[in-house]
Amino acid sequence: MSDELHEECGVFAIWGDPEAAVKAYWGTFSLQHRGQESAGIAVLDQGQIHVQKGMGLLQEAVKIKDLAHQPGQVALGHVRYSTTGASEAMNAQPLMMHTRFGPLALAHNGNLVNHRALRERLAQEGSIFQGTSDSEVLAHLIAKSTRPTLDQALSEALAQLEGGFAFGVLAGEALYGARDPWGLRPLVIGRTPAGAWVLASETCALDMVDAIWLRDVEPGEMVRIDEHGIMSERYRPPAETHACAFEVIYFSRPDSLWQGRSMHLKRRELGRQLAEEAPQAADVVVGVPDSSLPAAMGYAETSGIPFDFGLVKNRYIARTFIAPNRDHRESAVRLKLSAVKEVVAGRRVVLVDDSLVRGTTSRYIIQLLRQAGAKEVHMRIASPPYRDPCHYGIDTSRAGELAARNLSVDELADMVGADSLAYLSVAGLKRALGQEGWCLACFGQGYPVPVEQEVQHGG
Amino acid sequence: MSDELHEECGVFAIWGDPEAAVKAYWGTFSLQHRGQESAGIAVLDQGQIHVQKGMGLLQEAVKIKDLAHQPGQVALGHVRYSTTGASEAMNAQPLMMHTRFGPLALAHNGNLVNHRALRERLAQEGSIFQGTSDSEVLAHLIAKSTRPTLDQALSEALAQLEGGFAFGVLAGEALYGARDPWGLRPLVIGRTPAGAWVLASETCALDMVDAIWLRDVEPGEMVRIDEHGIMSERYRPPAETHACAFEVIYFSRPDSLWQGRSMHLKRRELGRQLAEEAPQAADVVVGVPDSSLPAAMGYAETSGIPFDFGLVKNRYIARTFIAPNRDHRESAVRLKLSAVKEVVAGRRVVLVDDSLVRGTTSRYIIQLLRQAGAKEVHMRIASPPYRDPCHYGIDTSRAGELAARNLSVDELADMVGADSLAYLSVAGLKRALGQEGWCLACFGQGYPVPVEQEVQHGG
Amino acid sequence: MSDELHEECGVFAIWGDPEAAVKAYWGTFSLQHRGQESAGIAVLDQGQIHVQKGMGLLQEAVKIKDLAHQPGQVALGHVRYSTTGASEAMNAQPLMMHTRFGPLALAHNGNLVNHRALRERLAQEGSIFQGTSDSEVLAHLIAKSTRPTLDQALSEALAQLEGGFAFGVLAGEALYGARDPWGLRPLVIGRTPAGAWVLASETCALDMVDAIWLRDVEPGEMVRIDEHGIMSERYRPPAETHACAFEVIYFSRPDSLWQGRSMHLKRRELGRQLAEEAPQAADVVVGVPDSSLPAAMGYAETSGIPFDFGLVKNRYIARTFIAPNRDHRESAVRLKLSAVKEVVAGRRVVLVDDSLVRGTTSRYIIQLLRQAGAKEVHMRIASPPYRDPCHYGIDTSRAGELAARNLSVDELADMVGADSLAYLSVAGLKRALGQEGWCLACFGQGYPVPVEQEVQHGG
Amino acid sequence: MSDELHEECGVFAIWGDPEAAVKAYWGTFSLQHRGQESAGIAVLDQGQIHVQKGMGLLQEAVKIKDLAHQPGQVALGHVRYSTTGASEAMNAQPLMMHTRFGPLALAHNGNLVNHRALRERLAQEGSIFQGTSDSEVLAHLIAKSTRPTLDQALSEALAQLEGGFAFGVLAGEALYGARDPWGLRPLVIGRTPAGAWVLASETCALDMVDAIWLRDVEPGEMVRIDEHGIMSERYRPPAETHACAFEVIYFSRPDSLWQGRSMHLKRRELGRQLAEEAPQAADVVVGVPDSSLPAAMGYAETSGIPFDFGLVKNRYIARTFIAPNRDHRESAVRLKLSAVKEVVAGRRVVLVDDSLVRGTTSRYIIQLLRQAGAKEVHMRIASPPYRDPCHYGIDTSRAGELAARNLSVDELADMVGADSLAYLSVAGLKRALGQEGWCLACFGQGYPVPVEQEVQHGG
Repeated sequence: MSDELHEECGVFAIWGDPEAAVKAYWGTFSLQHRGQESAGIAVLDQGQIHVQKGMGLLQEAVKIKDLAHQPGQVALGHVRYSTTGASEAMNAQPLMMHTRFGPLALAHNGNLVNHRALRERLAQEGSIFQGTSDSEVLAHLIAKSTRPTLDQALSEALAQLEGGFAFGVLAGEALYGARDPWGLRPLVIGRTPAGAWVLASETCALDMVDAIWLRDVEPGEMVRIDEHGIMSERYRPPAETHACAFEVIYFSRPDSLWQGRSMHLKRRELGRQLAEEAPQAADVVVGVPDSSLPAAMGYAETSGIPFDFGLVKNRYIARTFIAPNRDHRESAVRLKLSAVKEVVAGRRVVLVDDSLVRGTTSRYIIQLLRQAGAKEVHMRIASPPYRDPCHYGIDTSRAGELAARNLSVDELADMVGADSLAYLSVAGLKRALGQEGWCLACFGQGYPVPVEQEVQHGG
Repeated sequence: MSDELHEECGVFAIWGDPEAAVKAYWGTFSLQHRGQESAGIAVLDQGQIHVQKGMGLLQEAVKIKDLAHQPGQVALGHVRYSTTGASEAMNAQPLMMHTRFGPLALAHNGNLVNHRALRERLAQEGSIFQGTSDSEVLAHLIAKSTRPTLDQALSEALAQLEGGFAFGVLAGEALYGARDPWGLRPLVIGRTPAGAWVLASETCALDMVDAIWLRDVEPGEMVRIDEHGIMSERYRPPAETHACAFEVIYFSRPDSLWQGRSMHLKRRELGRQLAEEAPQAADVVVGVPDSSLPAAMGYAETSGIPFDFGLVKNRYIARTFIAPNRDHRESAVRLKLSAVKEVVAGRRVVLVDDSLVRGTTSRYIIQLLRQAGAKEVHMRIASPPYRDPCHYGIDTSRAGELAARNLSVDELADMVGADSLAYLSVAGLKRALGQEGWCLACFGQGYPVPVEQEVQHGG
Repeated sequence: MSDELHEECGVFAIWGDPEAAVKAYWGTFSLQHRGQESAGIAVLDQGQIHVQKGMGLLQEAVKIKDLAHQPGQVALGHVRYSTTGASEAMNAQPLMMHTRFGPLALAHNGNLVNHRALRERLAQEGSIFQGTSDSEVLAHLIAKSTRPTLDQALSEALAQLEGGFAFGVLAGEALYGARDPWGLRPLVIGRTPAGAWVLASETCALDMVDAIWLRDVEPGEMVRIDEHGIMSERYRPPAETHACAFEVIYFSRPDSLWQGRSMHLKRRELGRQLAEEAPQAADVVVGVPDSSLPAAMGYAETSGIPFDFGLVKNRYIARTFIAPNRDHRESAVRLKLSAVKEVVAGRRVVLVDDSLVRGTTSRYIIQLLRQAGAKEVHMRIASPPYRDPCHYGIDTSRAGELAARNLSVDELADMVGADSLAYLSVAGLKRALGQEGWCLACFGQGYPVPVEQEVQHGG
Repeated sequence: MSDELHEECGVFAIWGDPEAAVKAYWGTFSLQHRGQESAGIAVLDQGQIHVQKGMGLLQEAVKIKDLAHQPGQVALGHVRYSTTGASEAMNAQPLMMHTRFGPLALAHNGNLVNHRALRERLAQEGSIFQGTSDSEVLAHLIAKSTRPTLDQALSEALAQLEGGFAFGVLAGEALYGARDPWGLRPLVIGRTPAGAWVLASETCALDMVDAIWLRDVEPGEMVRIDEHGIMSERYRPPAETHACAFEVIYFSRPDSLWQGRSMHLKRRELGRQLAEEAPQAADVVVGVPDSSLPAAMGYAETSGIPFDFGLVKNRYIARTFIAPNRDHRESAVRLKLSAVKEVVAGRRVVLVDDSLVRGTTSRYIIQLLRQAGAKEVHMRIASPPYRDPCHYGIDTSRAGELAARNLSVDELADMVGADSLAYLSVAGLKRALGQEGWCLACFGQGYPVPVEQEVQHGG
């Protein structure tokens, strides 16, 4: 179940809006699903950068009241997913630093696969690292560059990075955005009717500030926005594109667009494809709320089996809820979801989920459906088996053992307690995505960018 | 839109479970939707009652860790909706008091329409009131009763109450439950496989502790649970039953059952009925998430127009989010909901909501759909016009002006910006509910219990 | 050492000041030494009473900012000492209640010795108790009185109380103050140049609001202050006066006056008397800071031995500091006090403390002096042996065993590790106090008011 | 009044104690008077450094409970004074960094006068600064050094610093301490009976962990402590010594020793000298508590006028107390101090304070004494006029205008409302200090180390 996977950040920036601080708040807020562990907003005012950041949701980390009084026409926001702990407060972004180019704020989504090597080299040359995040590496490469301008230094620094990344960098004179040469992590460009420029991880953030989607930042491209407008530079020739398929399968908000098509419709298409590949005689199709409902609907449409809300979610559970001990953990999960008896009792249920990572939650959900009287439960996964860890910005570390790595489909069906289990095929996934150029590394299709042996997770 | 209405509490109690404190926590947790302003758990241990309570969600008010170490086989929980403010902490329930019958804890859902008269009489007789809640009245009536036993005193006290109420009362020797003679507020009885007795405002709380629904507490009935089992007494002859229709329309959780039928299916039935009464040529049916999705689905089924998720909800908005000023309020609402462009763009949309109270949120949602490109928006409300305030336990005070009280349907359509607007008829509502015995006072059908002129809201 | 004894409250009230809320804050603040566990301010505005209260110091419990905007010309403040614990928040004062006489706020210093009997009788008659404090008893007696006016009801209620008490009661029409018939607990009357009336536990609070001391409320007297001025009534004939000697020895602030003489000078007098009775050849006189410095100075003056600051206090230790385990407790105490080596090294030290209750801290202090090189340490206590617990408003419960109850003076000297130990005699104490009419119960001189067997501590 | 001056930090370190973390807590705690705005403890365990730090007092910033479970035999603590503000949390120390020498923790007391020039040079060479504190500069100089070992790199780095400083540096292999070549800031070396080495800003911290004072770190000396013992190196030839006279006058704790003599006695000596130079016929000598009591006592001894406690301090005022508005500020000050009437009424008072910076508090205190009835108030300052700001580690920025810079002694007497005012002379100060080698820059005696034009304050 995909809530065991975690996107590692969202980036938002705006240039040229008299309410830049508040707009950055709204925009970053709409990316909250990309990271809930720390958040921050940096605002440029008269050459100075003011940062508010902290642990928790944006609402907890940043006081909107203070932003409402913060002058400045340029701002940069960030939400971050990372391991909990007070000591991690220093890793909250935007990272703020003072270099020979003046103050800089930096926001990063992704993971650098060569950050260990870079870090070691930088330390040998006298760099000091504050934390363990890989986002600091870019900062040091900029500061250390011998090139005379920030544009050149940034370009030189970016060219040394390997992996999936999207950066927003706020400097005294300009706002920069950059995306990795493989297009692994997303970054889009928008513009408001009043002419302000916007950078964001997803298009839903453009909507929040009434901006129109112009285009994506291209793989290997760095854009610079200042009072003269937007300028583009290729800091490195683009590689073959490998966009993250999981942005479509699970991470992005359903109302975000990918090349003009909504995630919601793409997910329904995944369900349709799944129904073609893995049909099942049943009485009702039920999706795991909220993320799998579109796929479940797609499955229902193609199969002709009615869709219904057989599982409902508790709206009032706090993110931080922790069960007091092992015996209570099952109850704790039950607080989050419950089955609607009349929908499933005495029926053959097709249960659609967007992915299956560890399998423990799936087991529990199937048990819940059976307690509510389901006669049969057939699990259908709207993506291929998740076999290999991601090294480009998705944290699978809390997923523990990747179930599909060690178990056959039949063994998995046994483990989760389903009457049958089927995945979408890699070919089916490609068909549903409808374009070329996807990273499918986690589905056993090979890593497009070679990976250092031991990788630390970044921003 | 029904989130402008607020249920005023949920009650849960358990007798005879070795983990009573934790079980009461799970059960009360599943009633969290009935009140988010304060919460508490009282546990009986060796004749002493220990209460944990406070402002906010149950998770904030009560530490589950502490409960895990709290011995005792009997517990009583409560969630409460009320106006915010530190001074209100004293109104958090269960109310704890020391009387000649020893310690008592009291949890109340509902509103007493004669509480002012009772309060005045009690004050004249020397009673001291700590707060302004009407729940204290029952406590004083018990303490003041001249009857020798607590059973008799409680029965005498209950007989003097008018209005909608359901009480759980925890005493040193027994657990009591009672429901008003009109059946306005709900209270059900369940039992766990191990033999523990459970009282709860809704059946979803029985599920949480693996209890089976036995029956409802009947209007005018008081039950007493102790080590000899459950005993029933009619403290007052039942009046004609008037169960709250809004429990079905909006308040109860979709997986709760009403006389064996789930709220989810009842709501789908409301949508079907609505499609019969107010058909509309359109391309897609969209419900306001989450509460109106079943009705929207019902409308889609009967009308044959496809249902789709045209609106999505932001999962990560904190309850306490406040916009810094008027200009930001629209943005603040937009943080909660967004439209999926491809679902609505260029289409005629039927927008289904469960109710329409003040109309301001509806106006905003329609605007959101139009910005996303909807060609037409036809609003359909799955309940009759909400004209009159409730005096039996639902707070309409924050709804401001009840829109349907002053405006015609056409004027309302104008106000919310819909191309057309239609409500379910009272007759249609009754048909969908499928039974007799409902309170429809808010729909202009008259108050079943006469109301004091000025009523304070209770628990 | 007297910090093992705890005064159980301070009361302050003001009538007729346009800034009554803020003035009550200042006045109550200056009584903070009388209780640090909860605090509150009640303000009368247009017949309504607004209360702010909470756990901790006044600064923590009440926001001065809010008071600055609170209209009203009458206010009542309270600081309280009590056992820690979240459940005790309900015992914070002023107690607020609604009775047939309208809203009342009540603040209490002292302890009622017959509160159990009163409580039982009241419960039999139908009263509900919220907490376990004895302060509620007065409220119920007022509410239950059949007398037609509040004056009469209050007078009738007060007449039933036994023990040490001083009350401030704020009602819609008037402010009341009352003191027990034995004069055990203090309450003074003052007036500001602008004509506002003030009631306070000590005169230092009068100074804070620029009020002049007029007189003490007399034992057995109730005063009523309203727009017509101050009126006096004897609710009960005064008994033989027994003022608390410990107010002089330790509790009151040194700048407070007792019948026109400052506590500071009285304490110096205690030291002088002690030097007469228990002379000792030595090189330096050292007092335990801060409370014993005046007595140490007096001892030095009479003996001719130089006074010096041989012990200094750490200003930055938080009240709530707790050592992680037993091994660290000694270090924890050492954080609070340290010895000045050059003052004591190689010298014979007379160590003066105001009292000796449990002896553990004394033992530690003497050890500290020896580690700093003191050749001899002669302990001198500026009050007689503390043998019997107080039942009139001073909590000795945390003092554990009263050392002087079980040990001879020689055994005590051994226990604390002193070369010699001597107390002030009862006769010497009387001489130093210089007047008749003191309660010396704790010094084994008998209880002036008979005590119920098991007494709960009050406000 | 000296509470308008602020010392800018305290440093404590311990090597070779099995309870190093807890010991560092006790030691750092005893230096709390040197800084109350942030605090932290770093512990070395198996090559890793664990830091706990945060805003506020040590008790607030660090949980002693956590330290009790922290293994490791080496620890470094720090308390810091700085301007308030959430954004300053990043400046809390020990500063933690990762360099090519592995992890380092750094704690700093003092102020570098050439830090701007160093900072600019470092930035040009690619260093990134996290904050605005000058303490980071040392870290970068170490990281940037091309010398092969940490000893050499540290030595090279220290040699480039100008100003007043004392550093503790914790590395994986050793603990370092260093003091500026002028001896402006203090740092002492001690050893526990069990053989652990201790570094501390004052000897009072040695006492807390039962360590014996061995010697001061010498000006221009760096010590290295590891498992082989302590090694000394002169990283720069010592300049003429200029120890900070204000450490004696006000900052250090009275029980700390300076070259074997206690601050308490030195301060009494200042008072004696003052009485010689500025005699005054009077009835009582009163000191401003707590810091000026020794000087007042010295004045009394030499003059033969009796010393008494004419001013008392409120123990229960929180550091963070803020008056709601200007009108209440006087009352706010009055909360902190009050006059004992009988001591001063009708008398000629000599009021002794350790220093006079801005004069506003003095004015208030004199007013307080007059309201209490003092016939005359003669102010005597136990140090020379404070004319020039400190650049070596004492913050005078909140002192506003230095009163003595612009006003004559007579004008100052007028401003504070004293009948007469006199300062100790520079010659008298030197006599009382009794040694050569003091920095008297603030008394107009010239800056021993040249100062950059605009200086930022450090750690």
